[in-house]
Amino acid sequence: MNIQQIVKEKGLGLLFRQGTVGIEKESQRVHADGSIVTSEHPKAFGNRSYHPYIQTDFAESQLELITPPNKKIEDTLRWLSALHEVTLRTIDENEYIFPMSMPAGLPPEQEIRVAQLDNAADVAYREHLVASYGKAKQMVSGIHYNFQLDPKLVETLFNAQTDYKSAVDFQNNLYLKMAKNFLRYQWIPLYLLSATPTVEANYFKDGSPLKPNQYVRSLRSSKYGYVNAPDIIVSFDSIEKYVETLEHWVNSGRLIAEKEFYSNVRLRGAKKAREFLHTGIQYLEFRLFDLNPFEAYGINLKDAKFIHHFILLMIWLEETADQDAVELGRARLGEVAFEDPHSETAYRDEGEQIINQLIDMLKAIGAEQSAVEFAEEKLAQFANPGQTLCARLVDAIEQAGGYQQLGGEIAKRNKVQAFERFYALSAFDNMELSTQALMFDAIQKGLNMEILDENDQFLRLQFGDHFEYVKNGNMTSHDSYISPLIMENKVVTKKVLAKAGFNVPQSLEFTSVEQAVASYPLFEGKAVVIKPKSTNFGLGISIFQQGVHDKADFAKAVEIAFREDKEVMVEDYLVGTEYRFFVLGNETLAVLLRVPANVMGDGVHTVAELVAAKNDHPLRGDGSRTPLKKIALGEIEQLQLKEQGLTVDSVPAKDQLVQLRANSNISTGGDSIDMTDEMHPSYKDLAVGITKAMGAAVCGVDLIIPDLKKPAEPNLSSWGVIEANFNPMMMMHIFPYSGKSRRLTLNVLGMLFPELV
Amino acid sequence: MNIQQIVKEKGLGLLFRQGTVGIEKESQRVHADGSIVTSEHPKAFGNRSYHPYIQTDFAESQLELITPPNKKIEDTLRWLSALHEVTLRTIDENEYIFPMSMPAGLPPEQEIRVAQLDNAADVAYREHLVASYGKAKQMVSGIHYNFQLDPKLVETLFNAQTDYKSAVDFQNNLYLKMAKNFLRYQWIPLYLLSATPTVEANYFKDGSPLKPNQYVRSLRSSKYGYVNAPDIIVSFDSIEKYVETLEHWVNSGRLIAEKEFYSNVRLRGAKKAREFLHTGIQYLEFRLFDLNPFEAYGINLKDAKFIHHFILLMIWLEETADQDAVELGRARLGEVAFEDPHSETAYRDEGEQIINQLIDMLKAIGAEQSAVEFAEEKLAQFANPGQTLCARLVDAIEQAGGYQQLGGEIAKRNKVQAFERFYALSAFDNMELSTQALMFDAIQKGLNMEILDENDQFLRLQFGDHFEYVKNGNMTSHDSYISPLIMENKVVTKKVLAKAGFNVPQSLEFTSVEQAVASYPLFEGKAVVIKPKSTNFGLGISIFQQGVHDKADFAKAVEIAFREDKEVMVEDYLVGTEYRFFVLGNETLAVLLRVPANVMGDGVHTVAELVAAKNDHPLRGDGSRTPLKKIALGEIEQLQLKEQGLTVDSVPAKDQLVQLRANSNISTGGDSIDMTDEMHPSYKDLAVGITKAMGAAVCGVDLIIPDLKKPAEPNLSSWGVIEANFNPMMMMHIFPYSGKSRRLTLNVLGMLFPELV
Repeated sequence: MNIQQIVKEKGLGLLFRQGTVGIEKESQRVHADGSIVTSEHPKAFGNRSYHPYIQTDFAESQLELITPPNKKIEDTLRWLSALHEVTLRTIDENEYIFPMSMPAGLPPEQEIRVAQLDNAADVAYREHLVASYGKAKQMVSGIHYNFQLDPKLVETLFNAQTDYKSAVDFQNNLYLKMAKNFLRYQWIPLYLLSATPTVEANYFKDGSPLKPNQYVRSLRSSKYGYVNAPDIIVSFDSIEKYVETLEHWVNSGRLIAEKEFYSNVRLRGAKKAREFLHTGIQYLEFRLFDLNPFEAYGINLKDAKFIHHFILLMIWLEETADQDAVELGRARLGEVAFEDPHSETAYRDEGEQIINQLIDMLKAIGAEQSAVEFAEEKLAQFANPGQTLCARLVDAIEQAGGYQQLGGEIAKRNKVQAFERFYALSAFDNMELSTQALMFDAIQKGLNMEILDENDQFLRLQFGDHFEYVKNGNMTSHDSYISPLIMENKVVTKKVLAKAGFNVPQSLEFTSVEQAVASYPLFEGKAVVIKPKSTNFGLGISIFQQGVHDKADFAKAVEIAFREDKEVMVEDYLVGTEYRFFVLGNETLAVLLRVPANVMGDGVHTVAELVAAKNDHPLRGDGSRTPLKKIALGEIEQLQLKEQGLTVDSVPAKDQLVQLRANSNISTGGDSIDMTDEMHPSYKDLAVGITKAMGAAVCGVDLIIPDLKKPAEPNLSSWGVIEANFNPMMMMHIFPYSGKSRRLTLNVLGMLFPELV
Repeated sequence: MNIQQIVKEKGLGLLFRQGTVGIEKESQRVHADGSIVTSEHPKAFGNRSYHPYIQTDFAESQLELITPPNKKIEDTLRWLSALHEVTLRTIDENEYIFPMSMPAGLPPEQEIRVAQLDNAADVAYREHLVASYGKAKQMVSGIHYNFQLDPKLVETLFNAQTDYKSAVDFQNNLYLKMAKNFLRYQWIPLYLLSATPTVEANYFKDGSPLKPNQYVRSLRSSKYGYVNAPDIIVSFDSIEKYVETLEHWVNSGRLIAEKEFYSNVRLRGAKKAREFLHTGIQYLEFRLFDLNPFEAYGINLKDAKFIHHFILLMIWLEETADQDAVELGRARLGEVAFEDPHSETAYRDEGEQIINQLIDMLKAIGAEQSAVEFAEEKLAQFANPGQTLCARLVDAIEQAGGYQQLGGEIAKRNKVQAFERFYALSAFDNMELSTQALMFDAIQKGLNMEILDENDQFLRLQFGDHFEYVKNGNMTSHDSYISPLIMENKVVTKKVLAKAGFNVPQSLEFTSVEQAVASYPLFEGKAVVIKPKSTNFGLGISIFQQGVHDKADFAKAVEIAFREDKEVMVEDYLVGTEYRFFVLGNETLAVLLRVPANVMGDGVHTVAELVAAKNDHPLRGDGSRTPLKKIALGEIEQLQLKEQGLTVDSVPAKDQLVQLRANSNISTGGDSIDMTDEMHPSYKDLAVGITKAMGAAVCGVDLIIPDLKKPAEPNLSSWGVIEANFNPMMMMHIFPYSGKSRRLTLNVLGMLFPELV
């Protein structure tokens, strides 16, 4: 089957390059010194019987992070980043993730806990492995690279060839070609990407096979790694032979199950190998790869793409390795694995020849120029072994003063980095923070998550057969269509709330002074605010807090307002402080006070310095990528300072509160202060009632309250509702400037999936 | 109590003018000749036990149309118009509404059916009335004008006076003043607005009291109208005396119930008069007014405003009529009622004096200039009795050749007028047609309806304690919030539908010819359409209906598309016709074919003439106020004609179909053709399934189907879904160009109120 020829003739380059990649990455939870922990897998990750992303491998301490398969390899790496951030922020504060494949600081064997899975068979299987291989080898970690060709490519290739009559046969042989050629040439990616040059001596039961100061390219892929007994040989000659030989080893009891066959390539897509005969191999799992300790998540995008291309080369090559060639490849792997990382490899010629073919292939299939350049870099590493990952790692180990020490240092650095923007999910930082928070929680709890539209913040979540859609963090099927329509219409909202008996300030609009003054009797004695319909910086606003009692005063206020606009509003004035109530279902989950941008004087620093210091807060930033915003020192702020007799260079007295804005918006540098526990419950009940009147499941209710400690009374002087918001902001509650954090996204998930405990 | 003085001193003009008005209007259903029908009250109006708007009064034939109370009198008149349109379009096609108060063409007494109400007591009451007054008098109809002062005015006046300590006392006496002064001066509105100069002789059991050719001002308000026995006198001196005397007549058996007391002013707001002592009179019902036969709905806005002002004058006047004055007023009413309509009234001086005071009042309270002018017109009618409504009516009767004849003629004219724009509810024509249709149905079926926001098409409907909100005709609580969010995002919609297993055409976007051509293998053999992302008049579009089989053809098509835009789409092409499925819940209620604007040649007329003739269709209009749109003859249409080798002056052959548009939008003159009964049920089921996948209660699904008679098969060549629409248009189904009308608004009401049978 000459794939190369068909792809070239039919111009299938794009289709050939397309494919689906998923990554599984094992790694150990460790202490700060890099030694492995004996604690349980964190309960916060829910139950491993269903978790799609965060699992344990052999041991309780051995995390297995599993990305979903993605058509774009970039997305797979984003997932890997997200899984790490969720994991690093969830595990115990004194625990870390070890960045290298070979375990260091192993506990005494009896303290290594096999993963505590629900399924007894899964546990029994692990106990069997312990008996066969010992615990230490099981603790070795790596990256498994799952790759599927585009089914449309397989179909097109099948239609273009004549060797195979059956599409299943064709597909099996195509993937077998890929597998066999990979096994033949696997020493090449090992040479280029291996990263297990050494390990602590106590890893070996019978003493280290390495001489003092000896480093190798890959202990993990050597006979000292985690491999089957050398006589366990499974044929890749044909799918039939593969099934036959594999079943032989299982039936003879040498393997406890098919999955105990640890080839560096696994055929995937069926529970039992025999099924491949009818359904075809669906994808391959490449298990060769060591963790790259220089990358926070064990692998980088360039290498992931290089691996993809190398795998493609395996079917692009004209020849197909036979069983002898496969065995030859395996032998070379063993040899190269034990070479000194700084030395030239024995098979440099073959390596350069294959990578040159890779470069030719990349050009032929129209791959991006950067991929060609990266392959050329890899090619150069045959002449310069010191540039290989492994050689560089050896240098770093020596510099750090030891393997475990380097691992511990990197682990700590990675954890700090994962907390740098602890409110975000970095890989999805183009999305809204609230959606990032919800995604974080969904990943942590083990909900299947699919991003339907990144720009539109549209997610699909699934647990078992139950699925839900979420947009913008809290827009869901639990709200009825009419609720947001009511809430986005202020006139209708007021009518509905007033009809339901809630205290709603009323307002009237006027187009002339005469008309407004004629309405004076409607307002006499009431607390009112008189303002131009469009307000700029509060110009033209008059407030009668104690009630308007004089018609001439009223008329004067109306005239002032009309100087600013052609329409003037007279509104009931609510005396008190505005609080935001976040209601979900029958409960007010959070109450927030928003305070206009301000700094507190200390008698020493200038306003500008105080602002700069306050802006250093980790939650503050510019744009939409932080929960709080930096205080600006623009025109509006300077005007505000001027009103207080200050400039940016003034030094406010100690404890002098300096206002920098009149409005309390978080988006203009305001502070958010959680008041949930301080608020009298009667107001929380009112907010729930208002939410119900709106017919909403999730609602942000803004109440004006003069005294949050006093119980609510049924009149406007006790409280008033000024707005009900659908899709209310969540970040300001999750990450308030001060007060307790309220993880509302977890409540949203709980509402959508009550079955998820 | 000097109201005038307080209003002037405190500048309460606006508040004084504010008030709430509701109108009840009785009238008889009649045959084309004006004679009263003996048929039942139409079943389409639902049940009279709850209908808030369309009731029967005494007889089964006697409609009582009841507007809700409105703060703006204009709204009351709009409601009256709407109630008439609903009624006239619902009653039997051979029935009409008699425009005058005195009944004509009475059936033999035994054939007059008392209203068949559910409540036995209501029927028994009517039977009692028959025994006391005979049936004929009960058939007299009129307008009852309900008026309530602004409660804020009552409160403000109370606070400003010192005569009364109790607010309830004050309110009772204020309304009693209004009632007594009205009874004193009621002859004046009678003189100005009466319209019952005569009746057919058979109305009187004992022969007509009118001499041949004698006309009077108001038979209805004379002793020959529907009045209590002359000795039944109820005192209005004080609320206590009123309660006492009224209870006396009931206790003595002279009245069967309080409601049998037929004063021209009734005190309202309590079930029993005694309650007024504690709760206060809430509003007054003025029952004096004859139907104005020259107005389609029995009264016009100017007169309604005049009545409002006249009622206000009754409390503005300094004096308060005592019982003697009330009796004097009643006597004058009787006298004036029997005057010749063309003659000067005996009390001209008093009339002019009162109307002059009315004019003074209007000026003092800042009423609109038009109200003053209208009062001046009325004033002039004392000098020119021939200009009174009644005199003009007499002239019309003579011209028509008789009372019943005139009534019949007007009744027929009014009905034709109510059908002129049968798809609209004229008074609410600023709203969307679909909302008008829903309002029509809600009124017909007897749902309480409140317009929360006219511009926003926001309604509140209520039946018993159950209420629902509706926006834009079919946006309700039955749809979940997430459904429209899914549907408004095409990417998400496609993903959701594809995942649910529906046939969704796929598309890819490209930014270069090379990129697109490289993807050729993805499309080879498939029917595709290649088009610029933004299309103008179909430029740059290539369609491979039979599948694309040649790469060069594909490349050529891509190049053509790139000439029009920087982005090009390649989409699965669906062969077939597009149909719109309107789905509600588990059912496809309507299927519509939309045909691009066209005319059919007849070998005689030019294209322009054919278009003009087609545009004459009653459903076609400009703008948004008709269900179908007129075909334009602009640039696009002329370009379309040119492609067919035609101009607007060409005479197409008989049966030659002339296309005037390429797009099938109804908004550009397309035809809508109902295909509900023609469509194979399998497609209707698919549309329901698609609606469910969207999580929607109401959905407009657009399917492309090559053969609507063949059952659906699971592949794109059998059918494909191209769009799912929330808030789908309803008018095109309710009023299609051809085919059966589907009254979808009734289904929406049925969904919201399943309890409403």
